[in-house]
Amino acid sequence: MSEKLVDFPYGPLDKYRSTASFDWKQMKLLMKPEGLLSFEQRLHEEFRKHPLLYNYELETPPLAEQRRITAKKLVILEHVVNKLTNGNGFTPLEYLSFVENVFALDASLGIKYTTTFDLFPNVLRVMGTQRHVELMTRALRGDIYGCVCYSEIAYGSDEEEMRTTATYDARRKQFILDTPDFKSAKSYVSLGKTAHYGVVYAHLILPSGERKGLHAFLVELHDANLKPRPGVIVGDMGEKAGLNGVDHSFIRFNTYPVPRESLLNRIADVTEDGRYIEHQNTVDAPLVQHCVFTIPKMRVANVANTYLLNAVTIALRYAGVRRQFAPSDKEEEVCIIEYQTHQYRLLPYLAVTYALKFFTRHVQSVINSGEKKMIADLGELRAISSGAKAIASWFARDGIQECREACGGHGYLRATGIGELRASNDFNCTVEGDNYEELLQTSDWLLSLWSTVLKGKRLPQTLMNSVEFLNNSQEILQEKFVVDGKDGVLCPKRILHTYKWLVCYMMKSTYDKYQRLLNGNSHAYARSESQIFYSKTLATAYIHHLVLETMWKRIADTPEGPLRTVLVKLFQLLGCWMLEQHMSKLHIGGYIVGPEPVTMLQNSVLKLCKELKSEAIGLVDAVACPDFMLNSILGNSDGEVYKHLQAAIYQHPAAFSRPSWWQEVTDRLSLNAKL
Amino acid sequence: MSEKLVDFPYGPLDKYRSTASFDWKQMKLLMKPEGLLSFEQRLHEEFRKHPLLYNYELETPPLAEQRRITAKKLVILEHVVNKLTNGNGFTPLEYLSFVENVFALDASLGIKYTTTFDLFPNVLRVMGTQRHVELMTRALRGDIYGCVCYSEIAYGSDEEEMRTTATYDARRKQFILDTPDFKSAKSYVSLGKTAHYGVVYAHLILPSGERKGLHAFLVELHDANLKPRPGVIVGDMGEKAGLNGVDHSFIRFNTYPVPRESLLNRIADVTEDGRYIEHQNTVDAPLVQHCVFTIPKMRVANVANTYLLNAVTIALRYAGVRRQFAPSDKEEEVCIIEYQTHQYRLLPYLAVTYALKFFTRHVQSVINSGEKKMIADLGELRAISSGAKAIASWFARDGIQECREACGGHGYLRATGIGELRASNDFNCTVEGDNYEELLQTSDWLLSLWSTVLKGKRLPQTLMNSVEFLNNSQEILQEKFVVDGKDGVLCPKRILHTYKWLVCYMMKSTYDKYQRLLNGNSHAYARSESQIFYSKTLATAYIHHLVLETMWKRIADTPEGPLRTVLVKLFQLLGCWMLEQHMSKLHIGGYIVGPEPVTMLQNSVLKLCKELKSEAIGLVDAVACPDFMLNSILGNSDGEVYKHLQAAIYQHPAAFSRPSWWQEVTDRLSLNAKL
Ligand SMILES: Cc1cc2nc3c(=O)[nH]c(=O)nc-3n(C[C@H](O)[C@H](O)[C@H](O)COP(=O)(O)OP(=O)(O)OC[C@H]3O[C@@H](n4cnc5c(N)ncnc54)[C@H](O)[C@@H]3O)c2cc1C
Ligand SMILES: Cc1cc2nc3c(=O)[nH]c(=O)nc-3n(C[C@H](O)[C@H](O)[C@H](O)COP(=O)(O)OP(=O)(O)OC[C@H]3O[C@@H](n4cnc5c(N)ncnc54)[C@H](O)[C@@H]3O)c2cc1C
Repeated sequence: MSEKLVDFPYGPLDKYRSTASFDWKQMKLLMKPEGLLSFEQRLHEEFRKHPLLYNYELETPPLAEQRRITAKKLVILEHVVNKLTNGNGFTPLEYLSFVENVFALDASLGIKYTTTFDLFPNVLRVMGTQRHVELMTRALRGDIYGCVCYSEIAYGSDEEEMRTTATYDARRKQFILDTPDFKSAKSYVSLGKTAHYGVVYAHLILPSGERKGLHAFLVELHDANLKPRPGVIVGDMGEKAGLNGVDHSFIRFNTYPVPRESLLNRIADVTEDGRYIEHQNTVDAPLVQHCVFTIPKMRVANVANTYLLNAVTIALRYAGVRRQFAPSDKEEEVCIIEYQTHQYRLLPYLAVTYALKFFTRHVQSVINSGEKKMIADLGELRAISSGAKAIASWFARDGIQECREACGGHGYLRATGIGELRASNDFNCTVEGDNYEELLQTSDWLLSLWSTVLKGKRLPQTLMNSVEFLNNSQEILQEKFVVDGKDGVLCPKRILHTYKWLVCYMMKSTYDKYQRLLNGNSHAYARSESQIFYSKTLATAYIHHLVLETMWKRIADTPEGPLRTVLVKLFQLLGCWMLEQHMSKLHIGGYIVGPEPVTMLQNSVLKLCKELKSEAIGLVDAVACPDFMLNSILGNSDGEVYKHLQAAIYQHPAAFSRPSWWQEVTDRLSLNAKL
Repeated sequence: MSEKLVDFPYGPLDKYRSTASFDWKQMKLLMKPEGLLSFEQRLHEEFRKHPLLYNYELETPPLAEQRRITAKKLVILEHVVNKLTNGNGFTPLEYLSFVENVFALDASLGIKYTTTFDLFPNVLRVMGTQRHVELMTRALRGDIYGCVCYSEIAYGSDEEEMRTTATYDARRKQFILDTPDFKSAKSYVSLGKTAHYGVVYAHLILPSGERKGLHAFLVELHDANLKPRPGVIVGDMGEKAGLNGVDHSFIRFNTYPVPRESLLNRIADVTEDGRYIEHQNTVDAPLVQHCVFTIPKMRVANVANTYLLNAVTIALRYAGVRRQFAPSDKEEEVCIIEYQTHQYRLLPYLAVTYALKFFTRHVQSVINSGEKKMIADLGELRAISSGAKAIASWFARDGIQECREACGGHGYLRATGIGELRASNDFNCTVEGDNYEELLQTSDWLLSLWSTVLKGKRLPQTLMNSVEFLNNSQEILQEKFVVDGKDGVLCPKRILHTYKWLVCYMMKSTYDKYQRLLNGNSHAYARSESQIFYSKTLATAYIHHLVLETMWKRIADTPEGPLRTVLVKLFQLLGCWMLEQHMSKLHIGGYIVGPEPVTMLQNSVLKLCKELKSEAIGLVDAVACPDFMLNSILGNSDGEVYKHLQAAIYQHPAAFSRPSWWQEVTDRLSLNAKL
């Protein structure tokens, strides 16, 4: 297989490409097992056949045009998918890789695709019944477009407070959807302007006036010609900080009647005469949770990492070419990748991208391995997906910004692509739940386990096995930091131990803090007042540990050799680097005493950075997306930064012409007189 | 005066407005002494008269249109200035306030104004001589526009490496400017497309071939009708991540002859027959440095803080209105400002904006107080301005992002304005020197003092008095953390002491590290390898300390009373919060032992946050810019978030219409068939 991989063109990057101790093709194979790699190659071939998919406009087009292009791309993408899968669908790992590639190509397109062909039909699948199958099938075929309407303008996180209602009228056998005011309009509905149908969450009200809480309804929004149905008011929310290829809408219902069958009735139903019945088989509730919450959150984590990888690719390739300062008059200027500061700024994020790739793939295969069992462990999966989405989107946020700055002035050009990556990822910090709230989900679950631990009982085994070590927390908490490793670099075992200690310690101290706060107060109060410095750190440490442990298992499966060696270094770098943010806790908890451990950790980070500098371009090559998809003047694999920069600038029709608005300047005096 | 200040309209923000323990008008007067306040009010009145200045387009206009509008705004602004000053110019503090206001209104306009009316003529003033006065006068009158061309496409930070040349031709008495290739084109020239003249830095080459290093030349670029002069090639660099109202260009010279008198010859000149003469009176060199480097850097710091203040205004006002989650079924939902996490995320940045306002104003008045003396202390001022620009732009970077996320989904709308603040500030991290490089400037100077200290000599007094305490470093380094304060909050004196200890400790340890690295290696190497964990922390701590000390002095001048009380709390919050990032060093250096001090610091932060929650809206009101300038749907002083949101969305002509590109969707099947 690796012979099918084409070598990179000769050029300015050769210097750092040739210093890699491993074969990038082998690494690529390790990161993407053979079947997946050839799948991806076919995908890229298909992409390539449709230039519109990767056409890069020199100037941001007007809003409507951006949306038009993305709508068109969606049709093309559907075609590509059909061609690739012959209508048979993807395997789960293929789908993961497909989604990564679509988001790497165009973030707005990614959102349009996943909403249309994944989120919407999936909601129907898990919340609907036989009577919704037909629409689901049409949605999967792309014959109708759908959207999900949950959040309201003034009410987002707390479902109790939402105010859209669906009142059952037994005479007409209809629900009447109603939005009392603008504040309760459904908001940020992705694709709201172009969806024929929407899954609308509304408070179900029985003819008796009794309220049954939030339920989901499958509702026609637009006719086949995309005119809104009478009673449905759809407004575009306008330009956003990013993702402008997607329309986000608000939707109001003006006593809009929908058939009784609109209710997605897997869990509960309303009879014709208006009685509310709950179905016995509530095993489905967790499945809904899983499909509607867990999977989208893991996707956000993966997408965030995809953006980060693009940014890191751009910044590291630029760093291997850009020169600044000569050590002496006689020497050539040095590539900025040589500077310790620059290594320190970028290489840890490269390690993040590798680790999160292992991680998201691992979670995906565990999910595949058994939906049934998984449902039982939904608590764990929810905790992991919430935490991973928060941690990954924040890594991407900080890493992309670091890459932007690491590209200096050129990084500020739109054609670099980093600004757009930042804007796209920004959304990930908020969507599917604000990151702070997500971390609370994670810590809630963890804290719920601690009482079991305190009682001396064993925790039940979980699917991801992420908390088993808590059973040994008593011993773990006795441990102290040991300087452990060779060449002044902390050894992987010690790194993992440190995180285990940290999680146990944060469990204990967060639990204690919570209990102290509870004293006479509400749970909401205790939860809220223990987030900063406690539960947030706990959730973060838990995800850090799990990511590292997953990576370590993958490394342990890798035979000794150059690949393994470099992966171990990435692992160590990530492990030591993330510990920096936990240093205070390590001190307070007494795991670390005196200055030596800190110095040891810091030295480890810098030493690993220096060693990985020579591997960096190879590591990027092994995971970067193709140039035509990356579409960045600074990130091309040929390293010809200045040629691409020049081409991009020269191409613009107005580059060399006098500004069209020159008279605003030359007329200044006469204008001035008129004021 | 304070009676001239208009009360804010009644509305949803009343609740948190009324909890302030102080009178916001009094605070406004404290922050802006009377003369300045009335100046600012007149400025706002003038702004208001010109609706174009604060017209907010619902959609980002095309690039050329953005630039056209900004060009027009510049003319209006010039008119406003003339009206305000009667052509007599601003006082320095008025100018500072003017610049803040212009950048708060429109970042691109700020750059256009300061380049045209400040940077360009100032360069002529300090580097030119009598023969350049006429152009300078015309520039100050706005009759010609100018720009400064320094960086080159492939060469930025190292002037030795720049490749634009100016070769003297004694026969024709001309310099011939030449750009060998695209890589050495002058890049990112602000206003390059509309400047009649540019100050161009080029390597001066004598007829003998002898090279004399980089010199500045005043060169005509465009004629009065904005056509480039033959031999000058100007290209627009295209769209950027932000600041698109300004054109940034690259400029190439194709053996372009300019008169001998073009040389800005304050420091050195070339005689008609081609001899190079250096002027004796080199006292001017520091002045050049000062005007060309120090002042612009302090301006960047101030502008960054202005953006941050806008973001904090938006996020805090939103937090005082947005409700999420009710503690129990019976209670109303709680405003998000009530959540500890939310307070912790936002209030420290509010403290930053106050502290940096005191700080930038103080530096400005010290500069005013004596240019002569200042020149002698240029080392200190350079260190401060470089460091302040880095620290302020990074505070703004992180704070603006925090505000973006703190506004949840609505924060992602363009009409919120936060995305644009982020994009505008991003530039501040790079311009006038990348932040990492700037911090090296700061630490270089600091380290140069340490040898004096080590020799037991007293440091000479400096203008800003920023390093005097280093004379007592021996005693300071003996100190240990003392839990010192009441109500569990660290007292201001202890906070200042802690920073003093930290600076001394970082001086010592960075110096030692540097010396160890030097051992046989070059200075460049030692400097580079001691940045992370050492000199960067040193420079940061030094600026943190100075900012705090300046704030403290201002507080000490404030009479006892509600204003002082709340300022002290802001001071303490900032001091304790910034210490979090230095915790590791406090441990390693032995200043802090055991867990108590950390807990004490963390409790201080949270306690202060809780107390300042009730003051937050008042504090914002006292420093926020007027609504018409802030131009954010979430940040209006009336707190009517949802009304403004609705208005902004409903106004868009396409809000309710079917998308213009609806057929891309409905034609899907036929399109699909064609593929
Ligand atoms: C581009 C975009 C697309 C979207 N697409 C869809 C879609 O297709 N369908 C849909 O239904 N929704 C969609 N959403 C909405 C999205 O899910 C919400 O914006 C998101 O869940 C955050 O909720 P919110 O905006 O109400 O923020 P809020 O919950 O109001 O949060 C605001 C801030 O307050 C803080 N906060 C809130 N509660 C607490 C607390 N208890 N303690 C501490 N801090 C708190 C948060 O941390 C946050 O920083 C979309 C949003 C965007 C921006
Ligand atoms: C919008 C905009 C407007 C501008 N306006 C003007 C203008 O009007 N006139 C003008 O002359 N210039 C202008 N500039 C150029 C600006 O001054 C430079 O971009 C800035 O000084 C940074 O230099 P650089 O781009 O060459 O970055 P580089 O110096 O190439 O830096 C790239 C990265 O390498 C790192 N790096 C570089 N050297 C080292 C080292 N020794 N050690 C560790 N790390 C290192 C930096 O930290 C940075 O992250 C403008 C730039 C922009 C983006």
